[in-house]
Amino acid sequence: MSESSLLGQSVTITVDGQQTTVTTGTTGTQLFADRREVVVLRVDGELRDLASELLEGTVVESVTIDSPDGLDVLRHSAAHVLAQAVQQVNPSARLGIGPPIKDGFYYDFDVAEPFTPEDLKALEKAMMRIVKEGQTFRRRPVADTDALVELADEPYKVELVGLKGTSDTAAEGASVEVGAGELTIYDNVRRNGDVAWSDLCRGPHLPSTKLIGNGYQLMRSAAAYWRGSEKNPQLQRIYGTAWATKDALKEHLERLAEAERRDHRRLGTELDLFSFPDEIGSGLAVFHPKGGIIRAEMEQYSRKRHVEEGYSFVNTPHITKEQLFQTSGHLDWYSEGMYPPMQLDEEHDADGVVRKAGQNYYLKPMNCPMHNLIFASRGRSYRELPLRLFEFGTVYRYEKSGVVHGLTRARGFTQDDAHIYCSRDQMKSELTNALTFVLGLLKDYGLDDFYLELSTRDPEKSVGSDEVWEEATRTLAEVAAESGLELVADPEGAAFYGPKISVQARDAIGRTWQMSTIQLDFNLPEKFDLEYAAADGTRQRPVMIHRALFGSIERFFAVLTEHYAGAFPAWLAPVQVLAVPVAEPFNDYLADVVAQLRASGIRADLDDSSDRFAKKIRTASTQKIPFVLIAGGEDAEAGAVSFRYRDGRQDNGVPIADAIERVRAAVRDRVQV
Amino acid sequence: MSESSLLGQSVTITVDGQQTTVTTGTTGTQLFADRREVVVLRVDGELRDLASELLEGTVVESVTIDSPDGLDVLRHSAAHVLAQAVQQVNPSARLGIGPPIKDGFYYDFDVAEPFTPEDLKALEKAMMRIVKEGQTFRRRPVADTDALVELADEPYKVELVGLKGTSDTAAEGASVEVGAGELTIYDNVRRNGDVAWSDLCRGPHLPSTKLIGNGYQLMRSAAAYWRGSEKNPQLQRIYGTAWATKDALKEHLERLAEAERRDHRRLGTELDLFSFPDEIGSGLAVFHPKGGIIRAEMEQYSRKRHVEEGYSFVNTPHITKEQLFQTSGHLDWYSEGMYPPMQLDEEHDADGVVRKAGQNYYLKPMNCPMHNLIFASRGRSYRELPLRLFEFGTVYRYEKSGVVHGLTRARGFTQDDAHIYCSRDQMKSELTNALTFVLGLLKDYGLDDFYLELSTRDPEKSVGSDEVWEEATRTLAEVAAESGLELVADPEGAAFYGPKISVQARDAIGRTWQMSTIQLDFNLPEKFDLEYAAADGTRQRPVMIHRALFGSIERFFAVLTEHYAGAFPAWLAPVQVLAVPVAEPFNDYLADVVAQLRASGIRADLDDSSDRFAKKIRTASTQKIPFVLIAGGEDAEAGAVSFRYRDGRQDNGVPIADAIERVRAAVRDRVQV
Repeated sequence: MSESSLLGQSVTITVDGQQTTVTTGTTGTQLFADRREVVVLRVDGELRDLASELLEGTVVESVTIDSPDGLDVLRHSAAHVLAQAVQQVNPSARLGIGPPIKDGFYYDFDVAEPFTPEDLKALEKAMMRIVKEGQTFRRRPVADTDALVELADEPYKVELVGLKGTSDTAAEGASVEVGAGELTIYDNVRRNGDVAWSDLCRGPHLPSTKLIGNGYQLMRSAAAYWRGSEKNPQLQRIYGTAWATKDALKEHLERLAEAERRDHRRLGTELDLFSFPDEIGSGLAVFHPKGGIIRAEMEQYSRKRHVEEGYSFVNTPHITKEQLFQTSGHLDWYSEGMYPPMQLDEEHDADGVVRKAGQNYYLKPMNCPMHNLIFASRGRSYRELPLRLFEFGTVYRYEKSGVVHGLTRARGFTQDDAHIYCSRDQMKSELTNALTFVLGLLKDYGLDDFYLELSTRDPEKSVGSDEVWEEATRTLAEVAAESGLELVADPEGAAFYGPKISVQARDAIGRTWQMSTIQLDFNLPEKFDLEYAAADGTRQRPVMIHRALFGSIERFFAVLTEHYAGAFPAWLAPVQVLAVPVAEPFNDYLADVVAQLRASGIRADLDDSSDRFAKKIRTASTQKIPFVLIAGGEDAEAGAVSFRYRDGRQDNGVPIADAIERVRAAVRDRVQV
Repeated sequence: MSESSLLGQSVTITVDGQQTTVTTGTTGTQLFADRREVVVLRVDGELRDLASELLEGTVVESVTIDSPDGLDVLRHSAAHVLAQAVQQVNPSARLGIGPPIKDGFYYDFDVAEPFTPEDLKALEKAMMRIVKEGQTFRRRPVADTDALVELADEPYKVELVGLKGTSDTAAEGASVEVGAGELTIYDNVRRNGDVAWSDLCRGPHLPSTKLIGNGYQLMRSAAAYWRGSEKNPQLQRIYGTAWATKDALKEHLERLAEAERRDHRRLGTELDLFSFPDEIGSGLAVFHPKGGIIRAEMEQYSRKRHVEEGYSFVNTPHITKEQLFQTSGHLDWYSEGMYPPMQLDEEHDADGVVRKAGQNYYLKPMNCPMHNLIFASRGRSYRELPLRLFEFGTVYRYEKSGVVHGLTRARGFTQDDAHIYCSRDQMKSELTNALTFVLGLLKDYGLDDFYLELSTRDPEKSVGSDEVWEEATRTLAEVAAESGLELVADPEGAAFYGPKISVQARDAIGRTWQMSTIQLDFNLPEKFDLEYAAADGTRQRPVMIHRALFGSIERFFAVLTEHYAGAFPAWLAPVQVLAVPVAEPFNDYLADVVAQLRASGIRADLDDSSDRFAKKIRTASTQKIPFVLIAGGEDAEAGAVSFRYRDGRQDNGVPIADAIERVRAAVRDRVQV
């Protein structure tokens, strides 16, 4: 053979960082034949089916089934098998889309009736049959016109073909079906070569349904509008979870159960902290007395720390004339998130003719424009800077009812909102102070596992000069670096008006919550024409920093509830001490102890109900009360009490004064018992 | 003469408590000929012209010009003279109404141009000429038809004639012109018998314009709608004040000037406490940092006291679905005072057809319905009563823009609002506790001159059984009596849902402010079907008490500002100590003192500006700072400071530690310096 023909029979590729030569026509399936865990390829950065032919000069990476990409493909393939199962059971079901999502997948179906839990059980079994059969996922490119003929019975898929290459394909999930390039259909092929089922899809998929294994489960179904718009027909969505192994699935279900036990909505009811009365409306919480105590403690401590850090407290209304949000730009770029206007002060004459035009008022979705008015309420001098205006400002945002979720995504919530006005020279120290402050405050509330995210400029969508952005971004990066925390880049993730740092906190079960944000703003000082007189007598524009530490009190309340699983540290606990007499004759003795505790500023109650002792202890436990003090004959004789801890430990014969001091210390030091 | 003819020539009457016999035909003018200060009669309880004939068996009381009734008549007569003067100057001016009001009178005119200050000066002079002329006010009954002919050129008066005897005559001021009975016109008659001017009027009036004297002044003019409705034409109203003597007028003007100096709107700007930005809208205040400190101190102290008194803090949203205010009845009987609704959550299909009806949301004008939902959020036992739910609840009320007034009548304000749910047995002790609590709290804020008002049932407009009203009213009356305070009856002044006590407080210049209200409510517990399980296992309806101590934080803020004329006691003052060096070399010394003060929790500032010493002292004075500490060479050497008080007193060479303790004590004891 000539060299050229030899070259023609082999291709040189890079496989997992190693240059390798293989014969022409070799596929990933052959290349990784001895590594069953490799299920997909990444070729020049793009995910491809394992069965793809390896081409000259490409960079090939193996993707194992338990890697993030591998799991995505596993979940996408599981979604296909779900759809196949649905159409087996109900051939008239029409298909929407079925993408992988975090921890699983979903698929939307147009069916006459919603799915029942029994339907889901039956579908899981049907899926298992398909998985066990080991059908091959086979990629097949099709021309658009052919696809339209083949999919004539699937109106939603036809619509997707029509969207090919438009920006609309980016709409929820649609891009998993069609991209900008060639259309493809995936056939599920039986061992005998029959095509069992087909679906319009960009892929890639696992080589075989068999690889889906038994690490999946269907979770629930819910209504969902086609392409996310309430103007479209309502479909039925089935959610599933899928993992590389049955054990991984089990672990996931355990995490879910733990999260469910910690769910703040559930604990909110169990501990009588708050509720969402139907009569008031979606996403609008009322805080009951016990929740009110926690909230007040959170606010009071935050207030104290803000005073110490040199913040000034202001108060602003919840409503304003629309002019203010026109000036700020909110009505241009945030009106979707705002409540509709109320029209006031229109005046009519006797014939009903408008004598004086009305005025639109809006609920505020943000506090910043009002703080700007306070800054602008009189002339400002450099001697007043930095001016740090703080408000517990309740804002209202019109969240779609579908995304409202307990206290973490509410329609009304109170921000611990500050705006810092400073000179360019003060910018770095203000940012450093703000970051140090927030990390310290979060630690005081029991969160201490953080990383930072730095959101930088999207050049397409931003105001302000290159030089200012550069300085601000560099300053934020320096401040972040000096904190010593892990820093994750969020390129082009900044709002149009300035870069920001956000603090991400991990809770007791490892979940990450975006907590605090520190955001520079080059836009509003311009729009509100904010100025101060500098030392040299010139008029200067202040730098503006938006900064919320909790984010919102409600959301932080939810995070703390889930972090502590409702067992709040004593300083936050609604009832700090419950006194439980061993028997009724010791009621009076403990009533006196409770009176002494209360006189020391401790929230103490006596359980003098007619319940039995064991029941009282169980109640204290379900109410997650930090300190349970019990007393019987020995204690009473000794002028003592016994501590009974949440974990069942007991500490007997503690003199009353010592007991009070122990509780006071726990409250003062904000420790968890 | 026979006895019968003798009887016919005399009438027996009671004059100021004494039975007297006078000849038939005797008038008040004759009876009180030697008492020039008597200007009107009260006959059988009704005010009558002095020239009225005294009839057999009537009870006659003399009314002097300086009595409340006499001043009313004086002011009413002055209003007539004003109208006469206006029509002299401008014969085309048409007359509206002109009643006496507190401290004065007004008269409305339909004129082409608003009155200028110069117009008012000219009118005062024209009035003086009429007064000096000594025209007699002569009463003349007229038939309705005759009145219509005579008043043909006065369209507003014609309208009033048409309203005679309808309930509409009760509309603003109209009843001073026409009552339900006979129509009368008052002629102003010159000494030569000519009628100088006439006006439709019920009277009574002074005998002569001369008695108006020189104790009056025209104050200002403003637009006002005819009969108070914006649907009617706009008239021009002139306000005047009138008193029995020039000295009394002077005293009134001095009181006004003092009130003007204390006006919280003026002090709010001068002391940089708050503002009402145009951009936000009428009646909606923003609190600046210094006002924010006062407000926070007010709230914190109130919160502390409420916790001590066994109140539970709750939080509720500012908006709700309309259903809640339908249940509470607010939309039936309070909708005029509410902001217009916002419609949310309407869903449309692709053709714009409504798929799901929207929902009206309202800003809350009151917190009570939401507190009821908290009560009803789970089963309640008698063991939980009394349940005292407290909230700093911000409410929004659609006040007409004409009545909005600074912080005392705002469109948005924060109530220190509590609702107490208790059993019938607990009602009296809860009312007593609430009254004791409010009086103590008001005293802590420096108000200590009170009286009470008891508003009782209007049988025509009320819900609830006779027995419950009787018990509740008796209980309130007992509680009021036991307080030892003066009790003023307000018969039929109760809201339809229950009787109330209100606390009226007199401020530093003797003005009365309605502060706190304690209100029983028999209606809402029914409407919300509130229940608790009683000790005997039966389900019982709780008694509900509405209770606000400040009324609203904003209004109380205004009252305190005016009461203290901005010179707040140290515990409330935004800056408690200003340190002023005698000269620049002592800046560092005082900076250290300020640092020590701050470490002791005192709000202290150093004036290290380049201003001269005298100017700094003036600034501290205009800023009404409680403690000014100065230091020069002697102080610095001795480790001391000098106190300089608001009244100019000085207290030299006070060791720093003593100075700090003196300030701390003033703050702790809430005393005014």
